[in-house]
Amino acid sequence: MEQNGADLVVRTLVENGVRMCFANPGTTEMHMLAALGRTEGMALSLCLFEGVATGAADGYARMTGTPAAVLLHLGPGFANGMANLHNARKAETPLFNIVGEHATYHLAYDAPLSADIEGMAATVSAAVATPQTPGEVAGATAHLLSQVSTGGVATLIVPNDVAWLPAEGAPVTALPKARPTHEEAMVADALAALSAPGGALVIGAPCITRRMAELADAIARKTGAKVLAEAAVARMQRGGCTPPLARIPFHVDPATEALKEVRAAVLCGAREPVAFFAYPGRPSKLLPEGAAVLPLCAPGGEVEAALEVLAAALGAEVTPYTQSEVEAADPEAAIDAEVLGRCVARTLPTGAIVVDEAITNGGHMFPMCAEAPSHDWINNRGGSIGYSMPVALGASTACPDRKVLCVTGDGSAFYTLQALWSMARDKRDVTVLVLANRSYRILANETSKIGAGAPIDETQPLMSLEDPAPDWVKLAEGQGVVAERVATAGALQAALEAAMSSTGPRLIEVAM
Amino acid sequence: MEQNGADLVVRTLVENGVRMCFANPGTTEMHMLAALGRTEGMALSLCLFEGVATGAADGYARMTGTPAAVLLHLGPGFANGMANLHNARKAETPLFNIVGEHATYHLAYDAPLSADIEGMAATVSAAVATPQTPGEVAGATAHLLSQVSTGGVATLIVPNDVAWLPAEGAPVTALPKARPTHEEAMVADALAALSAPGGALVIGAPCITRRMAELADAIARKTGAKVLAEAAVARMQRGGCTPPLARIPFHVDPATEALKEVRAAVLCGAREPVAFFAYPGRPSKLLPEGAAVLPLCAPGGEVEAALEVLAAALGAEVTPYTQSEVEAADPEAAIDAEVLGRCVARTLPTGAIVVDEAITNGGHMFPMCAEAPSHDWINNRGGSIGYSMPVALGASTACPDRKVLCVTGDGSAFYTLQALWSMARDKRDVTVLVLANRSYRILANETSKIGAGAPIDETQPLMSLEDPAPDWVKLAEGQGVVAERVATAGALQAALEAAMSSTGPRLIEVAM
Repeated sequence: MEQNGADLVVRTLVENGVRMCFANPGTTEMHMLAALGRTEGMALSLCLFEGVATGAADGYARMTGTPAAVLLHLGPGFANGMANLHNARKAETPLFNIVGEHATYHLAYDAPLSADIEGMAATVSAAVATPQTPGEVAGATAHLLSQVSTGGVATLIVPNDVAWLPAEGAPVTALPKARPTHEEAMVADALAALSAPGGALVIGAPCITRRMAELADAIARKTGAKVLAEAAVARMQRGGCTPPLARIPFHVDPATEALKEVRAAVLCGAREPVAFFAYPGRPSKLLPEGAAVLPLCAPGGEVEAALEVLAAALGAEVTPYTQSEVEAADPEAAIDAEVLGRCVARTLPTGAIVVDEAITNGGHMFPMCAEAPSHDWINNRGGSIGYSMPVALGASTACPDRKVLCVTGDGSAFYTLQALWSMARDKRDVTVLVLANRSYRILANETSKIGAGAPIDETQPLMSLEDPAPDWVKLAEGQGVVAERVATAGALQAALEAAMSSTGPRLIEVAM
Repeated sequence: MEQNGADLVVRTLVENGVRMCFANPGTTEMHMLAALGRTEGMALSLCLFEGVATGAADGYARMTGTPAAVLLHLGPGFANGMANLHNARKAETPLFNIVGEHATYHLAYDAPLSADIEGMAATVSAAVATPQTPGEVAGATAHLLSQVSTGGVATLIVPNDVAWLPAEGAPVTALPKARPTHEEAMVADALAALSAPGGALVIGAPCITRRMAELADAIARKTGAKVLAEAAVARMQRGGCTPPLARIPFHVDPATEALKEVRAAVLCGAREPVAFFAYPGRPSKLLPEGAAVLPLCAPGGEVEAALEVLAAALGAEVTPYTQSEVEAADPEAAIDAEVLGRCVARTLPTGAIVVDEAITNGGHMFPMCAEAPSHDWINNRGGSIGYSMPVALGASTACPDRKVLCVTGDGSAFYTLQALWSMARDKRDVTVLVLANRSYRILANETSKIGAGAPIDETQPLMSLEDPAPDWVKLAEGQGVVAERVATAGALQAALEAAMSSTGPRLIEVAM
């Protein structure tokens, strides 16, 4: 069979290591779908909403380091995937969108589904290309892959005739970009700053490895510097005697409190810390006024190597962390953030991947899980809720033999609940905890803090998911996922133990 | 209490007739929410996904003619609403988005949720404004309302400090735009074309009224011209002895067939007909080559007046349509498109609003309902699926005393299934028929037609919603909506009779 433009796109992807595609195609993507289906080395997964597909690609690449492809239908399909593309962009995840477009000659007629795809794509993509002939597709695909090889969202817009017309030529190899190395000239100043009173080291990376955490801990012990990770980290290796690395708190008040004694901050793969939102009378920048900022290694740079240099210069030695046991919660207790933390920390199996969207109930889980066996922790750097179930789907697709634990607020879970269906379809080993406080509790917390006053009769219902109370057991079962509801610490512990010792998708509605 | 920027936005909206806001707010919208809550004359409805909110606003305005407001959280919240904004844009529905933005001084720090909201908004909006001070908000709001007074999406981006700072001044009145009138100079040519062999009249309007249908019918009887509505009409008054107005078929082959004898097409509020998609070897333009096109009245223009002029010039007289009874289906029969049409046509109550997203199963329902009591028919002009349940929610909000019947494919329903929760929350009188063929059947139809070949083992699952089969009864009950499943004509008829004679939200899963 003759190669068409769609085949050449897919062959170029496979040639460059892209092996997975999360898809929600339409008519304009039928040639692309056929090519994806007949090309060896490419796997396909159907998502019933595009935000599931883009989030899954994000989770997949966080665990593999190589991008997944996402197949989307025209402008509106792309739009439905944009919120999780925003999150992927902020996490610097490599990701490759393929968006069908009307045939080049059909665009002039402004058919119902015509839209400004390039304009949409530009808002969330590091690189966008729209080849106009089949002869351009291999080069365009490879160029985009190169552009996002160290992270970022690429979007290839494929006009339908470009997909269906015969294509000559072979796949093109993408040249990966080099990650920036640290500023050698800044090492001496960084060492001095860390060793002086008020020294701080702030770390960020697409994946904060166990080695990075060990080096940071060694540097902290040697210098007395405060060491913190960014408030949200795309992926973090933890547990199994990895020294715990604290994060900058999410809320502006505890964050400024945590940083108040800093006189000089060495940034290693991290950006200067800023508040999530602006609040009247509170600062946007979290470091104290006048604190020095030393950007030792740029975001996306060779962070581990930079830390090795610092540790070696200091003669700081890595030593293992001695874990302590997390105490069990009272089985009769109602479930709050602390009980949640205890139950999760006590049941997390070795090699687990935790996708954390616990939001207002997450405060205890992260520190307590430092005492658990080795695992990965995934956080949202983009702040758009509805990221966790899709990301969990993708992480599980990347690592089918590891247990994925997705912990999500109920409000968050609603945005992309169609992820449950794909978990069932693909038999992914994902356990989802839906923290059912039946409210957008963060808004109830935030409205006064930002000076908008307490909710009144007219606005309180806008922060409440009561009336009707969602039934997550039915919402999961309706998509083929086994589910149960728990309301006490003992029931949560038992449900987690059962989930962790079996495989397959499962949902636990946690009454909070 | 002192007026702030948020108050002044809301007061300007209320002053100009905007009385409803569908909302999914976040921290940056708390001042706006508070203002919406405390301003008399503004009602609020919570949606658990932004695409529900934008679709609901579309449905609301289709029935009232005045825009609803939508409150969205920053760029990602806007992105989640974009697909249904695309549909609203193509339907020329007036709609007013309020999108929170970080405080003006906070934007420089590229906080996690920072995004190019203006870039996103530009792709789906007729007009966008981002006031930089509270002094600008009343003028900006009124200007946007004016810009979309005859249809289109307006987007007001409100930086958080602009919302929370004190605002002086009063609401500003928006000046509505005039709809274009018909081209008087073209009337004679149009009359000649309609009276000659191969004459055709193509009608489009935000709402094709009963009067328009009567006039079109009179013109057709007088001249022998073919009269057709555009393939999708935002709203159409039908039934109750309204002369049936056929639509241009959706698929390119029957559409070109329907138009093949046209020598001159008079466009009255309609655009020149084009194919939904390009297909290899098939035309993009649906009229025969060489057919004359006479744009008598521009889209969005005064269509009814133009038709009155034509009818008067012709001496064409309106006469009532004699309805015939739609025969009942065999109660034992399995449910197909024809059975669906019969059951719906036989149970539709007077004043019903039908929101049609039946797609591959919709072919019989539309013509058969011409024999039903008077009702409104709503279609998707933008082609982005997942529009119908949100639009039904909004139509019911606009017309709480009318029965809304939403007929949707199961694939389509998945995109915005969170609409069910809002129907339950707001106790809307909506009956949802989910046509459960458990497939994206349109894709299975399209893939060969567009030359991509039949599905193979690797691609067939991408068009199938089997494995696992969604359980729509549970998906509805999980959101507080009463539901049942039917599999025979008799059961569907009984379920519809029960639904039409009671009130409140209800879902019927229809096995097809």
